[in-house]
Amino acid sequence: MVIPNYEPEYAGRVEGMKASEIRELLKLLEQPGVISFAGGIPHPTLFPMGEVQSTYAEVLADKTLGPQALQYSVSEGYLPLRQWIVSHMAGRGVECSSGNIVITSGSQQGLEFLGRLLLSPNDTALVEAPTYLGALQAFAAFEPQYDELRPEDGNRTPESYLSAAAAAGGSAKFAYVVPDFANPTGLTLSLAARQNVLKLARDLDVPVIEDTAYAALRFEGQALPSLQAMDMEQTGSIDASRVIYCGTFSKTITPGLRIGWLCASQDIIRRIVLVKQATDLNSPLLNQMVMCRLAEQVYERQVMSAIERYRGRRDAMLQALETYMPKGVTWTKPAGGLFVWVILPYDIDPAELLKRAVSEAHVAYVPGAAFFAAGQNRNCMRLSYSLPNEDDIVRGVRQLAELLPALN
Amino acid sequence: MVIPNYEPEYAGRVEGMKASEIRELLKLLEQPGVISFAGGIPHPTLFPMGEVQSTYAEVLADKTLGPQALQYSVSEGYLPLRQWIVSHMAGRGVECSSGNIVITSGSQQGLEFLGRLLLSPNDTALVEAPTYLGALQAFAAFEPQYDELRPEDGNRTPESYLSAAAAAGGSAKFAYVVPDFANPTGLTLSLAARQNVLKLARDLDVPVIEDTAYAALRFEGQALPSLQAMDMEQTGSIDASRVIYCGTFSKTITPGLRIGWLCASQDIIRRIVLVKQATDLNSPLLNQMVMCRLAEQVYERQVMSAIERYRGRRDAMLQALETYMPKGVTWTKPAGGLFVWVILPYDIDPAELLKRAVSEAHVAYVPGAAFFAAGQNRNCMRLSYSLPNEDDIVRGVRQLAELLPALN
Repeated sequence: MVIPNYEPEYAGRVEGMKASEIRELLKLLEQPGVISFAGGIPHPTLFPMGEVQSTYAEVLADKTLGPQALQYSVSEGYLPLRQWIVSHMAGRGVECSSGNIVITSGSQQGLEFLGRLLLSPNDTALVEAPTYLGALQAFAAFEPQYDELRPEDGNRTPESYLSAAAAAGGSAKFAYVVPDFANPTGLTLSLAARQNVLKLARDLDVPVIEDTAYAALRFEGQALPSLQAMDMEQTGSIDASRVIYCGTFSKTITPGLRIGWLCASQDIIRRIVLVKQATDLNSPLLNQMVMCRLAEQVYERQVMSAIERYRGRRDAMLQALETYMPKGVTWTKPAGGLFVWVILPYDIDPAELLKRAVSEAHVAYVPGAAFFAAGQNRNCMRLSYSLPNEDDIVRGVRQLAELLPALN
Repeated sequence: MVIPNYEPEYAGRVEGMKASEIRELLKLLEQPGVISFAGGIPHPTLFPMGEVQSTYAEVLADKTLGPQALQYSVSEGYLPLRQWIVSHMAGRGVECSSGNIVITSGSQQGLEFLGRLLLSPNDTALVEAPTYLGALQAFAAFEPQYDELRPEDGNRTPESYLSAAAAAGGSAKFAYVVPDFANPTGLTLSLAARQNVLKLARDLDVPVIEDTAYAALRFEGQALPSLQAMDMEQTGSIDASRVIYCGTFSKTITPGLRIGWLCASQDIIRRIVLVKQATDLNSPLLNQMVMCRLAEQVYERQVMSAIERYRGRRDAMLQALETYMPKGVTWTKPAGGLFVWVILPYDIDPAELLKRAVSEAHVAYVPGAAFFAAGQNRNCMRLSYSLPNEDDIVRGVRQLAELLPALN
C-alpha cells in the first residue's frame, strides 16, 4: 500500500510562488567545460578573504564585542554599521541619520519587506519590462498585479496607470526601478528618465523603490544622481521623501554575509523594523560587526578592484559580440554592472536553444522571458561576464554565435 | 514651514504589526543594579567562544570552503548541516532525510514561513493561552484569528473549532504548540496532551506546528516523545506526517548565528524552500558551515553545560518563591527551559506594578498579558532565571515578594 504524502491546505498566496528559473537553471548548468554566462554572481577571487579572516578573529577575540556578537540583538541593526551607511549615503547625495537606516539580510529581504508593507492582493506594482527577477519573486507572495513602467518614455498619463490599477482590482502602490546597470539589461536611466519616474510617482502619490545593487560598479563616465537625492532636492529632507533606497554589500564586498539596507523616511523605517522583528528578529550581529569593519577598511579598494576586473570582461564581451554575432542580433552596451542583454531575431527562442547551447556550444546563459512580469518577449538572453575570464568570454561568445545562424 | 513626513498607503496587514512589548521593555529595563528576570535569552558565558573562534578561522582558511562561504548559496541550506540535523532528528525518534530539512534564520523565520504558507486573512490558528509571543508576531502579518488550544483538556469537540473558524470568516489552518518547557509557562505537555493535540489535528485535518526551542534543556526525568515521532508511528513516514517540527540552535549553542530548521514532509519543505528563496535567498553559508562543525563537536557538551547552569538557577528561583511569596501567589514548576510563570491574585496587574518593581524593588520581569492572543489574563508574569546568578535570583524574588503584600 502506498501511503499518500501529507499536504496541508495552503494559503492562496502560495500558488504564485515558484522557483527562480535562474536558480534552477544554475544547478543544471554546473557542468565541467561549460563557459557560464548564466550566473549574475560576483567573482569569488574578489572577496577580501584576508581581511574577512582577520576581522572575524578580531571581533570574536574582543572581550566586549565577542559575547555580544553571539547573542540576540536589536532588529534595526548594528548602530556603527548604520552610521557607516549614513556616511556612504551622504556620498550619494542623501543626508540622513541612523534612524533612516535598517539592516536587512541582503537587499532581497528589503524588497520582500517592502512588498509586505505596501501590497495587498491585486494592488499594482509598476516595474520595467524586463526587470529584476528576484524582485518579482519577492513581491509575488503578496499577490500583486503589474503594470509597465517606461522611464525613458514619459508620455503615458498617470490616469492610465490609475485606471489600469483599478481595473485590476486594487491601487497602484509603488514604482520599482534599478536605475544603474540594471539586472538584466545593464542599462542606466538617463537624468530625464529619473525625472520621469519621480514625476509619475508624485502624480500617482506612490513611493519609489530604488534598487541600487550595481550602482557602485561604474566603469566610465559620471555617476548620475540617485532618485532619492533628486527627490530630496524637492522635498528638502529624507523624512519627506517618497523614495526608498535599497542598498547592498553583495556586489562590492561579499554576498555571503547577507547584509543590505533600506534607507527611507523614519516613519517607513520604523514600520520595517517591526517587520524585521516579526520575521527573523535580527540579522546575525557577528556578520554585521564584521561588515562594518570591512566597509570602513576596504570598501573603496573593493569597488576599485571590482570595476577594474569587470570592465575588462565587459570590453571582451562587447568586442566578441561585435566580431562574431550574425546580423539581426543586437545588444546593450553597459557602462557598469555585470550584464549584457542580447536581443535575437523574433523567431529565435533562447529557452529552446539553451539545451543545444550547453551540449553543443558549451555555453550557458539565462533566457530572457523570466525577467518579464507577464512573461512576454521570449527572444532575449542575459549574458553575465562576471565569472569567466576574457579568453573564455571570447570563446564562449564565438561558440554561441556559431550556433545562431544554423537556426536561421 | 513644517514639511509633513512622507508616509505611503500601507497594505491592510500592516495594522496588525506592533512592536514586541518584551523587546521594547528590555530596552527600558537595562539599568544598572536591576536584577532582570525579563529576558528569555541564553547566558552569554555559555557560548562556546573558543570553538567559535577556531571554527571561523578554519572554515575561512580552507581553500575550498572559504570562497564558497562568502558566495551566494542554495536556499535549502548547507547539506552537511542538514545531514547533522537528520541524525539529531533520529535521536528524537524522527527518521528523515536531508530532503525533509530546510535551514531557517532562527526558528522565528520558520514560524513566519509557516504563517505565510498556511494563513489567509481571517483563517484561524489554534494556539495555547498563553503562548510564545514571537509566534503571535510572526503570524500577525497574515491577519489570522485565534482560537484556544487546550492540550491537557481533550474535551472540546472538533466541530466547535470548525464552527468558530467559519464564524471568524475562514478555516482552521493549524495547531501551534511548544510541548517542552514552553515559553512563557515552563510547562511540558503530558503524553495524553500530546495525543489530544494529534487527535484534534487529525479530526480537523490540519497540520501541527511543533516548536521545540527548549526541548533539549531537560533538567530531570524522562523526555517525552516529540509530536512528530508520535504522528509518524501512526502514519509510517515523515512524508505522510502532518507535524512540522521547528528546531533551533539558539538555546543550545548560540542565537547569534541565527540558525534554526524546519523538518517536515518533502512536499512542505519544497514549498518552504521557495519561500526562503523569495525572502532572503539563503542564510549566510559561512554561519551554516561554522554551526555544522560546532554541532558535530560541541552540541552534547553545550547541552550538558546549559542544563547544569539553568537547573541550579531554577532551583534557586523555586526555593525563593516558596520562601518569600505571600499567600495567594502560585507558580509553575518547570522541569527544564528558562521560565517560571507566576500567577498573582486577580486584583494585581503586573504591568501596572512593573514601574515600581524596577524603581523600588530593582527587579524586572515580563507582564503576562502579551502572551495571550486575545490579551486576556492580566494577572500573570514571566520570570526567567537564565541571566542572574543564584544569589541575585534569591534577592530579586525576595524584593519582588516584598512589593506584593503592600498592594493587598
